[in-house]
Amino acid sequence: MITTKLIPRTASAHEPPMLIKQLLAQSLKYEPQREIIYRDLFRMNYVTFNGRVRKLANLLGSLGVKGGDTVAVMDWDSHRYLECFFGVPCVGAILHTINVRLSPAQILYTMNHAEDKVLLIHEDFLPLLHAVKSQLTTVESIIIISDKVYAEGGSVEVPEGFAGEYEALLSDQSEACDFPDFDENTWATTFYTTGTTGNPKGVYFSHRQLFMHTMGLMSYVCGYQAVPFSALADVYMPITPMFHVHAWGFPFLATMLSTKQIYPGRYEPEMLLRLLLKEGVTLSHCVPTILNMLVSSPAAQQFKPQLSKWKVIIGGSALTKGLAKAALELGIQVYAGYGMSETAPIMSVTYLNDLERPLPIDEQVDLRTLAGRISPFIDMRLMDDNGQFVPHDGQSLGEIVARGPWLTQGYYKEPERAEDLWRNGWLHTGDVASITPDNWVHIADRTKDVIKTGGEWVSSLDIEDLLSQQAGVAEAAVIGLPDEKWGERPYALVVLKPGVEAAAEALRSQLQAKATAGEINKWYVPDRIVFVPEIPKTSVGKIDKKRIRSEMKDVLLNG
Amino acid sequence: MITTKLIPRTASAHEPPMLIKQLLAQSLKYEPQREIIYRDLFRMNYVTFNGRVRKLANLLGSLGVKGGDTVAVMDWDSHRYLECFFGVPCVGAILHTINVRLSPAQILYTMNHAEDKVLLIHEDFLPLLHAVKSQLTTVESIIIISDKVYAEGGSVEVPEGFAGEYEALLSDQSEACDFPDFDENTWATTFYTTGTTGNPKGVYFSHRQLFMHTMGLMSYVCGYQAVPFSALADVYMPITPMFHVHAWGFPFLATMLSTKQIYPGRYEPEMLLRLLLKEGVTLSHCVPTILNMLVSSPAAQQFKPQLSKWKVIIGGSALTKGLAKAALELGIQVYAGYGMSETAPIMSVTYLNDLERPLPIDEQVDLRTLAGRISPFIDMRLMDDNGQFVPHDGQSLGEIVARGPWLTQGYYKEPERAEDLWRNGWLHTGDVASITPDNWVHIADRTKDVIKTGGEWVSSLDIEDLLSQQAGVAEAAVIGLPDEKWGERPYALVVLKPGVEAAAEALRSQLQAKATAGEINKWYVPDRIVFVPEIPKTSVGKIDKKRIRSEMKDVLLNG
Repeated sequence: MITTKLIPRTASAHEPPMLIKQLLAQSLKYEPQREIIYRDLFRMNYVTFNGRVRKLANLLGSLGVKGGDTVAVMDWDSHRYLECFFGVPCVGAILHTINVRLSPAQILYTMNHAEDKVLLIHEDFLPLLHAVKSQLTTVESIIIISDKVYAEGGSVEVPEGFAGEYEALLSDQSEACDFPDFDENTWATTFYTTGTTGNPKGVYFSHRQLFMHTMGLMSYVCGYQAVPFSALADVYMPITPMFHVHAWGFPFLATMLSTKQIYPGRYEPEMLLRLLLKEGVTLSHCVPTILNMLVSSPAAQQFKPQLSKWKVIIGGSALTKGLAKAALELGIQVYAGYGMSETAPIMSVTYLNDLERPLPIDEQVDLRTLAGRISPFIDMRLMDDNGQFVPHDGQSLGEIVARGPWLTQGYYKEPERAEDLWRNGWLHTGDVASITPDNWVHIADRTKDVIKTGGEWVSSLDIEDLLSQQAGVAEAAVIGLPDEKWGERPYALVVLKPGVEAAAEALRSQLQAKATAGEINKWYVPDRIVFVPEIPKTSVGKIDKKRIRSEMKDVLLNG
Repeated sequence: MITTKLIPRTASAHEPPMLIKQLLAQSLKYEPQREIIYRDLFRMNYVTFNGRVRKLANLLGSLGVKGGDTVAVMDWDSHRYLECFFGVPCVGAILHTINVRLSPAQILYTMNHAEDKVLLIHEDFLPLLHAVKSQLTTVESIIIISDKVYAEGGSVEVPEGFAGEYEALLSDQSEACDFPDFDENTWATTFYTTGTTGNPKGVYFSHRQLFMHTMGLMSYVCGYQAVPFSALADVYMPITPMFHVHAWGFPFLATMLSTKQIYPGRYEPEMLLRLLLKEGVTLSHCVPTILNMLVSSPAAQQFKPQLSKWKVIIGGSALTKGLAKAALELGIQVYAGYGMSETAPIMSVTYLNDLERPLPIDEQVDLRTLAGRISPFIDMRLMDDNGQFVPHDGQSLGEIVARGPWLTQGYYKEPERAEDLWRNGWLHTGDVASITPDNWVHIADRTKDVIKTGGEWVSSLDIEDLLSQQAGVAEAAVIGLPDEKWGERPYALVVLKPGVEAAAEALRSQLQAKATAGEINKWYVPDRIVFVPEIPKTSVGKIDKKRIRSEMKDVLLNG
């Protein structure tokens, strides 16, 4: 660090910390009449919303929640969840967004690990809670949430021992509440990420980080218009769960800009489509599966004019070219985003620049199915095994590492895993990619799957792609196995199409010929190809390379 | 302060400080081919610009500039100035933007007071420099700037003792430069504001403050679209000097967004218009005089189609209804902004919300000539003499006080004036205003001119307006004078139109009748009206209330 002169401050001078309450305050400044809508059940303007957030703050206070306490939520995407996004951190407490898709044992682990003091839970998740309730060590109060209360005369039964029902409890509270000032590095949110080994890991974010994430996202979508977004014209509806990395941070931005927002509750195709059309939704984010469901439904052609105003950012898994093209042909503007729990999450999003915007649809598809361009304020690099940076030449592979204003500064109570995440002072994503000189990110593999051969990194996915394109091949899985000379070499499992005869050497020769002709890299040719009736998969249908490595190593090495 | 839990940080974790270099880095990320243009003399893309900024950093290093040193600039609005906006603070030095309109004695005072070590000076200002050069106590190196070098074979004579000419010195430097990290509270810029008494006061801003100002401005113009601004479509040209409060911060935002930017050099009407048309400028800011000059020029009607893409924010003095209407009728979108040297400067800017955007032009004019709506992230209040807040009811007057992320934290080496600025923990603007419940700011007066009568604050400007509207009145000046019963009472000087007979009591009765009829507030009627042949004015043509108070008190009180 060089020595600089800091600004002098007179005793009475004031400079505010960056807090989430400042984003909230903005929502009342210019367009307080705009609406936040929950399914076809509840709608309110930003004045009411702000009043409810303050009531929630008072409710939490009445339950004994103090600065540093954790408040957990299990709900579908709702206005209530949005109220918690602001109400919980604005009193200096920590919002724990529980991943309701975890197993009861994992949920139990995360709740005890995060030391949840208060739990807000939708009645749909009560069975999950009942499975673990007796083993919760820190929870003092539970609030039940139900949609039934929005129906005329509707009510919900409050289970014994619960503090009450959300709406009823809110209505008892005053709207008077001045959110306090505190250190901008105050812990605001936490949630858990599961890997293939070990317990779920708790990531966490400060007020400053979430404020900066909002600024970065605003730069992207409002400043650069990567995904054109204007508070004047856009209507936002998340279709990525709010427990999933702050629903990508859009709820903070949309609220700050007092954008019209739609919260769809549990994702039901019919309700999503109805809200999309009725409320004029223009911006969403979701996984490819949901977009695919919509694009391939008969309703899509019928509602083409309305859908052509819809912009969708895809994340979670890769956007395929087929889906991107199908969506674009319907007029839906599709974009891809890349990020992870550790990164709050925005790391890169599609941005077509002045030179690329006029490209024909097929060339756009090639770009839109990449992992996007590096986000504003994110310093993304590629690093090799020795901690050296790899050039951004669009070819060289390296692990994506990053620095930036909104990256988790560790894993809660996991000092060793935290240091491993941040080794060399850069957050390690575990993803292997190439980056073009103009900042397009192409994710190639996971670090544990990339094959390191002869000093080169080779993407196992690229070889799988290559094999799949060969005649007779139905499916392929490729892993790296130790090799004395090269460090590692690729080995392949191949499932043939019905009726095709196995001929490993013929397939290898075919690839070898391509390599000799310079069509493919010679390192790509697997040392051995083994034909199998099926490839081991995980419970969610992904190729299970861990199992292949442990169970099939011998057969791959020795035939 | 309540107690909260801060985020834990593992030893190797990294979180970047908010520095101006991060804004600069963005300019290369997506649209490096866009251009920065200086008059009809010089154009470059952002790659070249970034290279030149790094060369400037190396040049400063070669002159011995270290963190905390001050580098002063005297130039017209230019690409060179923009290079200094980034190059100087990015090496940890302080940019002193010298107000070239100050007297030589004031410039001398500010340069010695700021401890300028290096001076970059356009040759047009050499006479100013020569007048004071022998008395400069801290300057070690002077770099001469000239436009002549951009002409084929053009050159400029380097005065004896100068370090050299800017372009020649830059060309000697390498582009290799890694800007260091340092504390985000590092002093980045400084400049001086002159009042009616005492020496010029030095205000100053940190990297964090300028970063946040850029985010606030981006929220305004890109997020809320208060003055619709998109990096995709807009072309920016400042017509407020860059020495004047960072040209309102737009150069930082436009550079971060790699917007096409035009720097017009010395303001010459013909050149401004030529650049406006040739480069397709869509966004500028200027004082009313410049807009008026343009709107009333014969060229305006001729170029109406092109001008109708131009958005202009007016600041410096009030936008009149006449000028606003004339501009709007030409298709020029006019906006008003309010701020001051102490506030970096953005405090409020016109924002028409969903309900106001469809209003007819005359009603829009009423709104657009206000001082705008309170800026994102700025907490603006009205305060009375006892430090109590005054309601935002659109009627009550109070002094504008503010808190926010980009307000000067004092006056350099002026501890008493700094504490007075920040008394009660709020920055005091010296401006009296009312604020509507929906955040429109209406500036009514200066605190020293507002008349405090019977517990009410009355705007002297409002009474002057009222008097001016009466038959026979050419001009009026109103001041408050002490009154035993009411604290203060208004007294007026009136200049009559030629041939009109003076009748003070008739004029007062006329106003009294209006008060009785409830048309005006009864406190508005001056205790005495004195007719004079002319009203004392300052050198810049403003009513000199200080002189009226000192020289005409007796005649006003006693007739």
